[in-house]
Amino acid sequence: MVSKSQIKLITSLAQKKYRYKNGLFVAEGFKTINELIYSKFKLNRLFTLKEDFGIEADKIQNIDERELKKISFLKTPQAALALFEIPEEVNVQDENLILALDGIRDPGNLGTIIRLCDWFGIKNLVCSRDSVDCYNPKVVQATMGSLARVNISYCDLKTFLENSELPVYGAFMEGENIYKSKTEEKAILVMGNEANGISAEIEGMIGKRVSIPRFGEVQETESLNVATATAILFSEFKRNDFAG
Amino acid sequence: MVSKSQIKLITSLAQKKYRYKNGLFVAEGFKTINELIYSKFKLNRLFTLKEDFGIEADKIQNIDERELKKISFLKTPQAALALFEIPEEVNVQDENLILALDGIRDPGNLGTIIRLCDWFGIKNLVCSRDSVDCYNPKVVQATMGSLARVNISYCDLKTFLENSELPVYGAFMEGENIYKSKTEEKAILVMGNEANGISAEIEGMIGKRVSIPRFGEVQETESLNVATATAILFSEFKRNDFAG
Repeated sequence: MVSKSQIKLITSLAQKKYRYKNGLFVAEGFKTINELIYSKFKLNRLFTLKEDFGIEADKIQNIDERELKKISFLKTPQAALALFEIPEEVNVQDENLILALDGIRDPGNLGTIIRLCDWFGIKNLVCSRDSVDCYNPKVVQATMGSLARVNISYCDLKTFLENSELPVYGAFMEGENIYKSKTEEKAILVMGNEANGISAEIEGMIGKRVSIPRFGEVQETESLNVATATAILFSEFKRNDFAG
Repeated sequence: MVSKSQIKLITSLAQKKYRYKNGLFVAEGFKTINELIYSKFKLNRLFTLKEDFGIEADKIQNIDERELKKISFLKTPQAALALFEIPEEVNVQDENLILALDGIRDPGNLGTIIRLCDWFGIKNLVCSRDSVDCYNPKVVQATMGSLARVNISYCDLKTFLENSELPVYGAFMEGENIYKSKTEEKAILVMGNEANGISAEIEGMIGKRVSIPRFGEVQETESLNVATATAILFSEFKRNDFAG
Protein backbone atom coordinates (compact mmCIF):
# COMPACT_ATOMS: atom_id res chain seq x y z
CA MET A 1 0.00 0.00 0.00
CA VAL A 2 1.29 3.46 -0.86
CA SER A 3 -0.48 6.55 0.51
CA LYS A 4 -1.51 9.63 -1.44
CA SER A 5 0.96 11.79 0.43
CA GLN A 6 3.74 9.31 -0.41
CA ILE A 7 2.82 9.43 -4.11
CA LYS A 8 2.88 13.21 -3.94
CA LEU A 9 6.27 13.20 -2.21
CA ILE A 10 7.85 10.72 -4.62
CA THR A 11 6.62 12.39 -7.81
CA SER A 12 7.82 15.76 -6.45
CA LEU A 13 11.35 14.31 -6.27
CA ALA A 14 11.60 14.65 -10.06
CA GLN A 15 12.40 18.26 -9.22
CA LYS A 16 15.70 19.30 -7.70
CA LYS A 17 14.02 21.84 -5.43
CA TYR A 18 11.94 19.14 -3.73
CA ARG A 19 14.81 16.66 -3.59
CA TYR A 20 16.86 19.09 -1.52
CA LYS A 21 13.89 20.33 0.50
CA ASN A 22 13.15 16.74 1.54
CA GLY A 23 16.75 15.55 1.49
CA LEU A 24 15.68 12.50 -0.52
CA PHE A 25 16.25 10.92 -3.93
CA VAL A 26 14.74 8.02 -5.84
CA ALA A 27 16.50 4.84 -7.00
CA GLU A 28 14.81 2.05 -8.96
CA GLY A 29 15.59 -1.57 -9.74
CA PHE A 30 17.02 -4.31 -7.50
CA LYS A 31 20.61 -3.96 -8.72
CA THR A 32 20.86 -0.22 -8.13
CA ILE A 33 18.95 -0.33 -4.83
CA ASN A 34 21.06 -3.20 -3.53
CA GLU A 35 24.32 -1.41 -4.35
CA LEU A 36 23.10 1.76 -2.65
CA ILE A 37 21.82 -0.05 0.45
CA TYR A 38 25.26 -1.52 1.10
CA SER A 39 27.07 1.80 0.73
CA LYS A 40 27.34 5.21 2.35
CA PHE A 41 23.71 5.94 1.44
CA LYS A 42 21.00 5.71 4.08
CA LEU A 43 17.76 4.05 3.05
CA ASN A 44 14.64 6.00 3.90
CA ARG A 45 11.97 3.68 2.50
CA LEU A 46 11.63 0.80 0.07
CA PHE A 47 8.55 0.08 -2.04
CA THR A 48 8.67 -3.40 -3.53
CA LEU A 49 6.61 -6.06 -5.27
CA LYS A 50 8.68 -8.85 -3.65
CA GLU A 51 10.16 -9.37 -0.22
CA ASP A 52 13.73 -10.39 -0.89
CA PHE A 53 15.75 -7.58 0.62
CA GLY A 54 17.61 -8.39 3.81
CA ILE A 55 16.85 -5.09 5.53
CA GLU A 56 14.80 -3.79 8.44
CA ALA A 57 11.15 -4.67 7.86
CA ASP A 58 9.87 -1.32 9.14
CA LYS A 59 11.38 0.43 6.12
CA ILE A 60 9.76 -1.89 3.60
CA GLN A 61 6.35 -1.29 2.09
CA ASN A 62 4.84 -3.99 -0.11
CA ILE A 63 3.00 -2.59 -3.05
CA ASP A 64 1.31 -3.94 -6.17
CA GLU A 65 2.09 -3.23 -9.82
CA ARG A 66 -0.64 -0.64 -10.15
CA GLU A 67 0.84 1.33 -7.24
CA LEU A 68 4.37 0.96 -8.54
CA LYS A 69 3.28 2.45 -11.85
CA LYS A 70 2.05 5.55 -10.02
CA ILE A 71 5.38 6.23 -8.32
CA SER A 72 7.91 4.97 -10.89
CA PHE A 73 9.84 7.31 -13.18
CA LEU A 74 10.53 4.48 -15.63
CA LYS A 75 8.56 3.46 -18.70
CA THR A 76 8.98 -0.14 -17.56
CA PRO A 77 8.98 -0.11 -13.73
CA GLN A 78 11.44 -2.54 -12.17
CA ALA A 79 9.77 -4.29 -9.19
CA ALA A 80 11.24 -1.95 -6.57
CA LEU A 81 11.64 1.75 -5.88
CA ALA A 82 13.55 3.18 -2.95
CA LEU A 83 14.02 6.55 -1.33
CA PHE A 84 17.49 7.32 -0.03
CA GLU A 85 18.74 10.28 1.96
CA ILE A 86 20.90 12.76 0.07
CA PRO A 87 24.22 12.56 1.95
CA GLU A 88 26.40 15.42 3.12
CA GLU A 89 29.10 16.22 0.59
CA VAL A 90 32.54 14.98 1.57
CA ASN A 91 35.72 16.93 1.06
CA VAL A 92 37.58 16.29 -2.16
CA GLN A 93 40.86 14.48 -1.59
CA ASP A 94 43.87 15.15 -3.81
CA GLU A 95 44.85 11.50 -3.88
CA ASN A 96 44.30 10.73 -7.53
CA LEU A 97 42.92 12.10 -10.78
CA ILE A 98 39.94 14.38 -10.05
CA LEU A 99 37.29 14.96 -12.69
CA ALA A 100 35.65 18.40 -12.86
CA LEU A 101 32.53 18.98 -14.96
CA ASP A 102 31.78 22.48 -16.20
CA GLY A 103 28.07 22.73 -17.00
CA ILE A 104 27.14 19.17 -18.03
CA ARG A 105 23.40 19.22 -18.67
CA ASP A 106 22.35 15.82 -19.93
CA PRO A 107 21.40 13.32 -17.17
CA GLY A 108 22.44 10.35 -19.34
CA ASN A 109 25.88 11.86 -19.89
CA LEU A 110 26.40 12.51 -16.19
CA GLY A 111 25.24 8.98 -15.35
CA THR A 112 27.64 7.46 -17.89
CA ILE A 113 30.48 9.64 -16.59
CA ILE A 114 29.82 8.52 -12.99
CA ARG A 115 30.03 4.88 -14.19
CA LEU A 116 33.31 5.71 -15.91
CA CYS A 117 34.73 7.28 -12.72
CA ASP A 118 33.79 4.12 -10.86
CA TRP A 119 35.36 1.89 -13.54
CA PHE A 120 38.62 3.82 -13.60
CA GLY A 121 38.83 4.20 -9.82
CA ILE A 122 38.37 7.96 -9.85
CA LYS A 123 36.94 8.75 -6.43
CA ASN A 124 36.27 12.45 -6.74
CA LEU A 125 33.93 14.18 -9.14
CA VAL A 126 33.47 17.93 -8.81
CA CYS A 127 30.63 19.65 -10.70
CA SER A 128 29.92 23.31 -11.35
CA ARG A 129 26.64 24.43 -9.77
CA ASP A 130 24.97 24.70 -13.20
CA SER A 131 25.65 21.02 -13.94
CA VAL A 132 22.73 18.58 -13.79
CA ASP A 133 22.04 17.27 -10.27
CA CYS A 134 23.44 13.79 -9.64
CA TYR A 135 20.32 12.83 -7.66
CA ASN A 136 18.08 13.46 -10.68
CA PRO A 137 16.20 10.13 -11.19
CA LYS A 138 17.56 9.78 -14.75
CA VAL A 139 21.14 10.21 -13.54
CA VAL A 140 20.66 7.71 -10.70
CA GLN A 141 19.21 5.24 -13.22
CA ALA A 142 22.08 5.71 -15.68
CA THR A 143 24.76 5.19 -13.00
CA MET A 144 23.65 1.56 -12.44
CA GLY A 145 24.76 1.75 -8.80
CA SER A 146 28.11 3.46 -9.39
CA LEU A 147 26.75 6.46 -7.50
CA ALA A 148 27.59 4.50 -4.35
CA ARG A 149 31.32 4.56 -5.06
CA VAL A 150 32.06 8.08 -6.34
CA ASN A 151 32.15 11.21 -4.16
CA ILE A 152 30.30 13.95 -5.97
CA SER A 153 30.31 17.57 -4.93
CA TYR A 154 28.84 20.73 -6.39
CA CYS A 155 30.72 23.98 -5.94
CA ASP A 156 31.90 27.17 -7.54
CA LEU A 157 34.29 25.53 -9.97
CA LYS A 158 36.47 28.62 -10.44
CA THR A 159 37.08 28.92 -6.70
CA PHE A 160 37.75 25.19 -6.46
CA LEU A 161 40.38 25.34 -9.21
CA GLU A 162 41.93 28.50 -7.76
CA ASN A 163 42.35 26.81 -4.39
CA SER A 164 43.85 23.61 -5.75
CA GLU A 165 47.56 23.13 -6.30
CA LEU A 166 47.11 20.28 -8.76
CA PRO A 167 47.84 20.71 -12.47
CA VAL A 168 44.62 21.42 -14.39
CA TYR A 169 43.96 19.74 -17.75
CA GLY A 170 41.05 20.75 -19.94
CA ALA A 171 39.51 19.03 -22.99
CA PHE A 172 39.26 21.27 -26.05
CA MET A 173 38.76 20.78 -29.77
CA GLU A 174 42.17 22.43 -30.24
CA GLY A 175 44.76 21.30 -27.76
CA GLU A 176 47.82 19.13 -27.36
CA ASN A 177 47.32 15.66 -28.85
CA ILE A 178 46.46 13.53 -25.80
CA TYR A 179 48.40 10.59 -27.25
CA LYS A 180 51.57 12.69 -27.19
CA SER A 181 50.90 14.39 -23.85
CA LYS A 182 52.57 13.43 -20.63
CA THR A 183 49.80 13.01 -18.11
CA GLU A 184 50.29 13.39 -14.39
CA GLU A 185 48.86 10.96 -11.84
CA LYS A 186 47.57 13.63 -9.51
CA ALA A 187 45.71 16.14 -11.60
CA ILE A 188 42.34 17.69 -12.32
CA LEU A 189 40.71 17.05 -15.70
CA VAL A 190 37.99 19.51 -16.73
CA MET A 191 35.31 18.51 -19.26
CA GLY A 192 32.94 21.15 -20.61
CA ASN A 193 29.30 21.55 -21.55
CA GLU A 194 27.83 19.39 -24.34
CA ALA A 195 27.20 22.28 -26.74
CA ASN A 196 29.64 24.99 -25.69
CA GLY A 197 32.59 23.18 -24.13
CA ILE A 198 34.51 24.71 -21.24
CA SER A 199 33.21 28.16 -20.24
CA ALA A 200 35.29 31.33 -20.70
CA GLU A 201 35.51 31.75 -16.93
CA ILE A 202 37.01 28.29 -16.42
CA GLU A 203 39.14 28.37 -19.57
CA GLY A 204 41.46 30.84 -17.86
CA MET A 205 42.15 28.29 -15.13
CA ILE A 206 43.32 25.51 -17.50
CA GLY A 207 47.05 24.89 -17.43
CA LYS A 208 47.15 22.30 -20.21
CA ARG A 209 44.71 22.08 -23.12
CA VAL A 210 44.40 18.55 -24.47
CA SER A 211 42.39 17.09 -27.32
CA ILE A 212 41.62 13.74 -28.90
CA PRO A 213 42.85 13.88 -32.50
CA ARG A 214 40.33 13.17 -35.20
CA PHE A 215 41.38 10.41 -37.58
CA GLY A 216 38.70 10.81 -40.21
CA GLU A 217 38.02 13.74 -42.51
CA VAL A 218 37.89 17.08 -40.75
CA GLN A 219 34.39 18.37 -40.01
CA GLU A 220 34.55 21.73 -38.29
CA THR A 221 31.34 21.30 -36.37
CA GLU A 222 31.91 17.74 -35.29
CA SER A 223 32.85 16.66 -31.79
CA LEU A 224 32.76 13.52 -29.70
CA ASN A 225 30.01 13.05 -27.16
CA VAL A 226 31.32 14.26 -23.77
CA ALA A 227 30.94 10.84 -22.14
CA THR A 228 32.90 9.03 -24.89
CA ALA A 229 35.55 11.77 -24.82
CA THR A 230 35.81 11.33 -21.03
CA ALA A 231 36.22 7.57 -21.53
CA ILE A 232 39.14 8.06 -23.91
CA LEU A 233 40.84 10.68 -21.71
CA PHE A 234 40.46 8.54 -18.56
CA SER A 235 41.96 5.66 -20.50
CA GLU A 236 44.96 7.80 -21.43
CA PHE A 237 45.45 9.12 -17.88
CA LYS A 238 45.20 5.62 -16.41
CA ARG A 239 46.63 3.26 -19.00
CA ASN A 240 50.21 3.50 -17.72
CA ASP A 241 49.10 2.14 -14.36
CA PHE A 242 47.93 -0.97 -16.16
CA ALA A 243 50.24 -1.23 -19.17
CA GLY A 244 53.10 -2.04 -16.78
CA MET B 1 2.08 21.71 -47.79
CA VAL B 2 2.40 18.04 -46.92
CA SER B 3 -0.19 15.56 -48.21
CA LYS B 4 -1.98 12.89 -46.21
CA SER B 5 -0.25 10.13 -48.14
CA GLN B 6 3.12 11.74 -47.42
CA ILE B 7 2.33 11.88 -43.70
CA LYS B 8 1.35 8.22 -43.84
CA LEU B 9 4.54 7.30 -45.70
CA ILE B 10 6.84 9.25 -43.37
CA THR B 11 5.33 7.97 -40.14
CA SER B 12 5.50 4.41 -41.52
CA LEU B 13 9.28 4.82 -41.83
CA ALA B 14 9.58 4.41 -38.06
CA GLN B 15 9.30 0.71 -38.90
CA LYS B 16 12.14 -1.20 -40.53
CA LYS B 17 9.72 -3.15 -42.74
CA TYR B 18 8.39 0.01 -44.37
CA ARG B 19 11.84 1.61 -44.65
CA TYR B 20 13.06 -1.28 -46.77
CA LYS B 21 9.76 -1.66 -48.66
CA ASN B 22 10.00 2.01 -49.70
CA GLY B 23 13.80 2.16 -49.80
CA LEU B 24 13.70 5.37 -47.76
CA PHE B 25 14.81 6.71 -44.42
CA VAL B 26 14.24 9.92 -42.46
CA ALA B 27 16.86 12.48 -41.39
CA GLU B 28 16.10 15.62 -39.40
CA GLY B 29 17.86 18.91 -38.70
CA PHE B 30 19.92 21.14 -40.98
CA LYS B 31 23.30 19.81 -39.93
CA THR B 32 22.50 16.13 -40.48
CA ILE B 33 20.57 16.78 -43.70
CA ASN B 34 23.34 18.96 -45.11
CA GLU B 35 25.99 16.33 -44.41
CA LEU B 36 23.89 13.63 -46.03
CA ILE B 37 23.03 15.73 -49.10
CA TYR B 38 26.72 16.20 -49.90
CA SER B 39 27.54 12.51 -49.57
CA LYS B 40 26.78 9.15 -51.16
CA PHE B 41 23.15 9.46 -50.10
CA LYS B 42 20.52 10.45 -52.64
CA LEU B 43 17.90 12.93 -51.48
CA ASN B 44 14.33 11.92 -52.21
CA ARG B 45 12.46 14.87 -50.72
CA LEU B 46 13.02 17.73 -48.31
CA PHE B 47 10.37 19.28 -46.08
CA THR B 48 11.49 22.57 -44.62
CA LEU B 49 10.30 25.70 -42.83
CA LYS B 50 12.99 27.79 -44.55
CA GLU B 51 14.41 27.91 -48.06
CA ASP B 52 18.15 27.90 -47.50
CA PHE B 53 19.27 24.63 -49.09
CA GLY B 54 21.15 24.91 -52.38
CA ILE B 55 19.42 21.95 -54.02
CA GLU B 56 16.96 21.29 -56.83
CA ALA B 57 13.75 23.16 -56.13
CA ASP B 58 11.55 20.29 -57.31
CA LYS B 59 12.63 18.18 -54.34
CA ILE B 60 11.82 20.86 -51.77
CA GLN B 61 8.45 21.22 -50.13
CA ASN B 62 7.86 24.22 -47.90
CA ILE B 63 5.80 23.38 -44.88
CA ASP B 64 4.68 25.11 -41.71
CA GLU B 65 5.38 24.24 -38.08
CA ARG B 66 2.06 22.50 -37.64
CA GLU B 67 2.81 20.20 -40.57
CA LEU B 68 6.36 19.57 -39.41
CA LYS B 69 5.03 18.44 -36.06
CA LYS B 70 2.92 15.80 -37.81
CA ILE B 71 5.85 14.22 -39.63
CA SER B 72 8.72 14.73 -37.16
CA PHE B 73 10.04 11.94 -34.93
CA LEU B 74 11.58 14.46 -32.54
CA LYS B 75 10.10 15.98 -29.41
CA THR B 76 11.43 19.32 -30.59
CA PRO B 77 11.27 19.30 -34.42
CA GLN B 78 14.25 20.95 -36.08
CA ALA B 79 13.03 23.12 -39.02
CA ALA B 80 13.68 20.47 -41.68
CA LEU B 81 13.00 16.80 -42.33
CA ALA B 82 14.34 14.91 -45.33
CA LEU B 83 13.77 11.55 -46.95
CA PHE B 84 16.85 9.84 -48.38
CA GLU B 85 17.15 6.65 -50.40
CA ILE B 86 18.63 3.67 -48.57
CA PRO B 87 21.80 2.95 -50.57
CA GLU B 88 23.05 -0.40 -51.81
CA GLU B 89 25.52 -1.93 -49.38
CA VAL B 90 29.13 -1.67 -50.50
CA ASN B 91 31.67 -4.44 -50.11
CA VAL B 92 33.77 -4.34 -46.98
CA GLN B 93 37.38 -3.49 -47.67
CA ASP B 94 40.16 -4.97 -45.58
CA GLU B 95 42.11 -1.74 -45.56
CA ASN B 96 41.94 -0.86 -41.91
CA LEU B 97 40.37 -1.81 -38.61
CA ILE B 98 36.86 -3.17 -39.20
CA LEU B 99 34.25 -3.02 -36.45
CA ALA B 100 31.75 -5.87 -36.20
CA LEU B 101 28.68 -5.57 -33.97
CA ASP B 102 27.04 -8.72 -32.67
CA GLY B 103 23.44 -7.94 -31.73
CA ILE B 104 23.58 -4.28 -30.69
CA ARG B 105 20.00 -3.30 -29.89
CA ASP B 106 19.97 0.25 -28.61
CA PRO B 107 19.64 2.93 -31.34
CA GLY B 108 21.53 5.49 -29.25
CA ASN B 109 24.45 3.09 -28.82
CA LEU B 110 24.63 2.32 -32.54
CA GLY B 111 24.47 6.05 -33.36
CA THR B 112 27.27 6.84 -30.92
CA ILE B 113 29.36 3.96 -32.31
CA ILE B 114 28.90 5.23 -35.89
CA ARG B 115 30.14 8.67 -34.73
CA LEU B 116 33.14 6.96 -33.13
CA CYS B 117 33.93 5.07 -36.37
CA ASP B 118 33.84 8.38 -38.21
CA TRP B 119 36.05 10.06 -35.62
CA PHE B 120 38.65 7.30 -35.67
CA GLY B 121 38.61 6.92 -39.46
CA ILE B 122 37.11 3.42 -39.37
CA LYS B 123 35.38 3.08 -42.74
CA ASN B 124 33.74 -0.31 -42.38
CA LEU B 125 31.11 -1.33 -39.87
CA VAL B 126 29.61 -4.80 -40.16
CA CYS B 127 26.51 -5.68 -38.15
CA SER B 128 24.82 -9.00 -37.45
CA ARG B 129 21.31 -9.16 -38.87
CA ASP B 130 19.76 -8.97 -35.39
CA SER B 131 21.46 -5.63 -34.69
CA VAL B 132 19.33 -2.48 -34.74
CA ASP B 133 18.89 -1.01 -38.25
CA CYS B 134 21.18 1.95 -38.95
CA TYR B 135 18.35 3.76 -40.81
CA ASN B 136 16.15 3.74 -37.70
CA PRO B 137 15.31 7.46 -37.15
CA LYS B 138 16.83 7.40 -33.65
CA VAL B 139 20.10 6.01 -35.00
CA VAL B 140 20.22 8.56 -37.82
CA GLN B 141 19.61 11.31 -35.27
CA ALA B 142 22.33 10.07 -32.93
CA THR B 143 24.95 9.83 -35.71
CA MET B 144 24.86 13.62 -36.25
CA GLY B 145 25.72 13.15 -39.93
CA SER B 146 28.50 10.58 -39.46
CA LEU B 147 26.30 8.08 -41.28
CA ALA B 148 27.52 9.74 -44.48
CA ARG B 149 31.11 8.65 -43.90
CA VAL B 150 30.88 5.07 -42.63
CA ASN B 151 30.02 2.04 -44.80
CA ILE B 152 27.57 -0.09 -42.88
CA SER B 153 26.54 -3.57 -43.91
CA TYR B 154 24.31 -6.20 -42.37
CA CYS B 155 25.19 -9.84 -42.87
CA ASP B 156 25.51 -13.24 -41.30
CA LEU B 157 28.36 -12.34 -38.98
CA LYS B 158 29.62 -15.91 -38.56
CA THR B 159 29.98 -16.35 -42.33
CA PHE B 160 31.64 -12.95 -42.62
CA LEU B 161 34.22 -13.83 -39.97
CA GLU B 162 34.80 -17.29 -41.47
CA ASN B 163 35.53 -15.76 -44.87
CA SER B 164 37.91 -13.11 -43.58
CA GLU B 165 41.62 -13.69 -43.17
CA LEU B 166 42.06 -10.82 -40.74
CA PRO B 167 42.80 -11.45 -37.06
CA VAL B 168 39.59 -11.25 -35.01
CA TYR B 169 39.55 -9.48 -31.64
CA GLY B 170 36.55 -9.64 -29.32
CA ALA B 171 35.69 -7.59 -26.22
CA PHE B 172 34.96 -9.69 -23.15
CA MET B 173 34.75 -9.11 -19.40
CA GLU B 174 37.59 -11.63 -19.07
CA GLY B 175 40.30 -11.24 -21.68
CA GLU B 176 43.83 -10.01 -22.19
CA ASN B 177 44.36 -6.55 -20.72
CA ILE B 178 44.00 -4.25 -23.74
CA TYR B 179 46.72 -1.95 -22.38
CA LYS B 180 49.18 -4.85 -22.57
CA SER B 181 47.95 -6.27 -25.87
CA LYS B 182 49.71 -5.79 -29.15
CA THR B 183 47.04 -4.62 -31.55
CA GLU B 184 47.25 -5.09 -35.30
CA GLU B 185 46.44 -2.35 -37.79
CA LYS B 186 44.37 -4.56 -40.06
CA ALA B 187 41.98 -6.48 -37.89
CA ILE B 188 38.34 -7.03 -37.00
CA LEU B 189 37.09 -5.96 -33.57
CA VAL B 190 33.84 -7.59 -32.40
CA MET B 191 31.65 -5.90 -29.78
CA GLY B 192 28.69 -7.79 -28.33
CA ASN B 193 25.13 -7.18 -27.25
CA GLU B 194 24.42 -4.70 -24.41
CA ALA B 195 23.11 -7.31 -21.98
CA ASN B 196 24.67 -10.60 -23.09
CA GLY B 197 27.94 -9.66 -24.78
CA ILE B 198 29.24 -11.66 -27.73
CA SER B 199 27.00 -14.62 -28.65
CA ALA B 200 28.16 -18.22 -28.26
CA GLU B 201 28.10 -18.69 -32.05
CA ILE B 202 30.47 -15.77 -32.63
CA GLU B 203 32.61 -16.45 -29.56
CA GLY B 204 34.10 -19.46 -31.33
CA MET B 205 35.35 -17.18 -34.12
CA ILE B 206 37.33 -14.85 -31.82
CA GLY B 207 41.09 -15.26 -32.05
CA LYS B 208 42.00 -12.81 -29.28
CA ARG B 209 39.85 -11.95 -26.29
CA VAL B 210 40.57 -8.48 -24.94
CA SER B 211 39.17 -6.54 -22.02
CA ILE B 212 39.40 -3.12 -20.44
CA PRO B 213 40.70 -3.62 -16.90
CA ARG B 214 38.60 -2.27 -14.12
CA PHE B 215 40.46 0.08 -11.78
CA GLY B 216 37.90 0.40 -9.03
CA GLU B 217 36.51 -2.25 -6.70
CA VAL B 218 35.40 -5.41 -8.46
CA GLN B 219 31.67 -5.69 -9.04
CA GLU B 220 30.79 -8.93 -10.77
CA THR B 221 27.74 -7.61 -12.53
CA GLU B 222 29.25 -4.33 -13.65
CA SER B 223 30.31 -3.53 -17.19
CA LEU B 224 31.01 -0.47 -19.28
CA ASN B 225 28.39 0.76 -21.72
CA VAL B 226 29.16 -0.75 -25.14
CA ALA B 227 29.69 2.67 -26.78
CA THR B 228 32.17 3.84 -24.12
CA ALA B 229 33.97 0.47 -24.28
CA THR B 230 34.18 0.83 -28.07
CA ALA B 231 35.63 4.34 -27.63
CA ILE B 232 38.39 3.05 -25.36
CA LEU B 233 39.23 0.08 -27.60
CA PHE B 234 39.32 2.25 -30.76
CA SER B 235 41.64 4.59 -28.90
CA GLU B 236 43.97 1.70 -28.06
CA PHE B 237 43.94 0.33 -31.63
CA LYS B 238 44.59 3.76 -33.12
CA ARG B 239 46.73 5.62 -30.60
CA ASN B 240 50.04 4.42 -32.02
CA ASP B 241 49.21 6.07 -35.35
CA PHE B 242 49.02 9.36 -33.51
CA ALA B 243 51.43 8.95 -30.63
CA GLY B 244 54.28 9.36 -33.12
